[in-house]
Amino acid sequence: MRAFNFSPGPAALPDAVLEQARDELLDYRGRGLSVMEMSHRSKEFVDIAQSAEADLRELLAIGDDYHVLFVQGGASMQFAMVPFNLCRAEDTVDYVHTGSWGTKAIAEAQRLAMVNVAASSEETNFDRVPARETWRLSANAAYCHIVANETIGGVQFHEFPETDAPLVADMSSELLSRPVDVTRFGVIYAGAQKNVGPAGLCVVIVRRDLAGRARPGTPRILDYAVQGENGSMFNTPPTYSWYLAGLVLKWLKHAGGVAEMDRVNRRKAAKLYAAIDASDFYHSPVKTPDRSIMNVPFTLADPALDQAFLDGAEERRLLNLKGHRSVGGMRASLYNAVSEEAVDTLIEYLAAFEADHG
Amino acid sequence: MRAFNFSPGPAALPDAVLEQARDELLDYRGRGLSVMEMSHRSKEFVDIAQSAEADLRELLAIGDDYHVLFVQGGASMQFAMVPFNLCRAEDTVDYVHTGSWGTKAIAEAQRLAMVNVAASSEETNFDRVPARETWRLSANAAYCHIVANETIGGVQFHEFPETDAPLVADMSSELLSRPVDVTRFGVIYAGAQKNVGPAGLCVVIVRRDLAGRARPGTPRILDYAVQGENGSMFNTPPTYSWYLAGLVLKWLKHAGGVAEMDRVNRRKAAKLYAAIDASDFYHSPVKTPDRSIMNVPFTLADPALDQAFLDGAEERRLLNLKGHRSVGGMRASLYNAVSEEAVDTLIEYLAAFEADHG
Repeated sequence: MRAFNFSPGPAALPDAVLEQARDELLDYRGRGLSVMEMSHRSKEFVDIAQSAEADLRELLAIGDDYHVLFVQGGASMQFAMVPFNLCRAEDTVDYVHTGSWGTKAIAEAQRLAMVNVAASSEETNFDRVPARETWRLSANAAYCHIVANETIGGVQFHEFPETDAPLVADMSSELLSRPVDVTRFGVIYAGAQKNVGPAGLCVVIVRRDLAGRARPGTPRILDYAVQGENGSMFNTPPTYSWYLAGLVLKWLKHAGGVAEMDRVNRRKAAKLYAAIDASDFYHSPVKTPDRSIMNVPFTLADPALDQAFLDGAEERRLLNLKGHRSVGGMRASLYNAVSEEAVDTLIEYLAAFEADHG
Repeated sequence: MRAFNFSPGPAALPDAVLEQARDELLDYRGRGLSVMEMSHRSKEFVDIAQSAEADLRELLAIGDDYHVLFVQGGASMQFAMVPFNLCRAEDTVDYVHTGSWGTKAIAEAQRLAMVNVAASSEETNFDRVPARETWRLSANAAYCHIVANETIGGVQFHEFPETDAPLVADMSSELLSRPVDVTRFGVIYAGAQKNVGPAGLCVVIVRRDLAGRARPGTPRILDYAVQGENGSMFNTPPTYSWYLAGLVLKWLKHAGGVAEMDRVNRRKAAKLYAAIDASDFYHSPVKTPDRSIMNVPFTLADPALDQAFLDGAEERRLLNLKGHRSVGGMRASLYNAVSEEAVDTLIEYLAAFEADHG
């Protein structure tokens, strides 16, 4: 029996996707081999790869003026690839700091460029996105970097800023959860293991005019232009993860695309936040306007009950609700593949646990 | 029906591994979720990861003085990570050039260090390993790099050289095919997609005293010491590929370990080379002493018959025999998961095709 999986990532995948992967695992459509046993240069795999790219372009209305890359290394590799590709060591780059992933992105960029932290909500424990009018952007920044949704803190941009410099966004935990106007961005990247597919794959959407300027000494494999010119096959790509991402994208199209995901995701999150806000027993640490639709951290009034809460949740097959070790409490991640039934079951459990322990 | 798959990589995996992966795909041992849906920090996944590392250490008798890393980016990423970690831009590094992968490793290293090509068989079209006494090693090289087995050209080191500098070996297409004395090496790396598991995972075995010296500006994710200290979980690892590698390693132990693989692989290769050598219709381009046990390139006396040969092979479910586009002809890759039955069937086909067309 499948559990309700609220893991922040690697995260739940649609049942239908896993069933198809299972059915095709030993023999892909009569070819006599598994997708993971195919050369990445085979006709079969090239079809899989190109279909996934085409579906992603269709789902997010990505124009031909953008490369769509399927690469390795996750968002953490992008923390370095962005400065490798978009600036030189002496250039200034702006970062807006809204949580733990921002901290990591900034630390990596500081090794490779002159970082200006243009705004930060660190003083208020990352409970919000700093208001746009407080940002101190640099006059000649090579780019401005944001984390569109902070997976750990549960803080999300609900409007994207206008900036003179190209806007670069880590969208790991929100890509494909809602429509996005890609033309507003220079680079969008997302570790796959939330809404796209399994870990080990990273989707990078790069405006073509920003590729081809990598600094000297950048490994070729980390050069956006090299990856773009080679259709993400400069070296052997993570073929099976790419295939699974393709299945997720087909499922997503069939389920109504990102506009429909947005409606369902907002409904799921609204219900859960309403249940938390209606109670003095549970608490959301994030300011209402900046709350994430994807990751809902919450605390119990009495942290001594945390373990009992988690144990009771496991009994109901509500898994992976423990908050990140850096913030404590609980966190429910509500990615596309987390069903409304899962959220309803969680909300029922919140009430039942409060009735027993409140 | 499963085909006979001679793909050079991504390559055949053992049926038993794929069957187990299929059976566990939607529900890992009653937990109600797939391995690919689990947090990499979950107890279940940490067990999977640590078991794989322990099995690899056991299979290759790797001591505690070595890190064993499971990272992303394949061998191509290691082409840059080796110089990032083991030398500075002004240091001299020795490379022995025995084929296409050596060419790529050298090109990448030239961007990051002073490369001395200590020996090369390029003039004889990479038909051999240059004799050790012809190598012109540098007095103070930071390391000496070899490609233990050239996947494309089918040239393999059957004895590893003594060098003063730490020996670094790309073993992508041979790791786990035979015993290796790891203590002879400073670094061994291998893209998984031949004998270890699916693409998107790279195994790196690093002598601990060589880690921790990465040059300034090396991204943290590319620092052997950072990966080692974090148990390859500095960031989200390619969890599902790691799990599959673990299944392969268990299968390998059950099948008798690398000594038994070595026996079977030598038998498989010897049969195939004997069939090729016994005929004027087929030809092996590699000098006998340096022929690869893993990758057997061969040509037809009349290249006009290549397509007919491949078509006939496909009819017998002998797949992926086409040689690399850079060398032409045919290539049969005989990794651990390629059964003796597959090789026997190929040899029968060689004879039958020659009888029809010779």
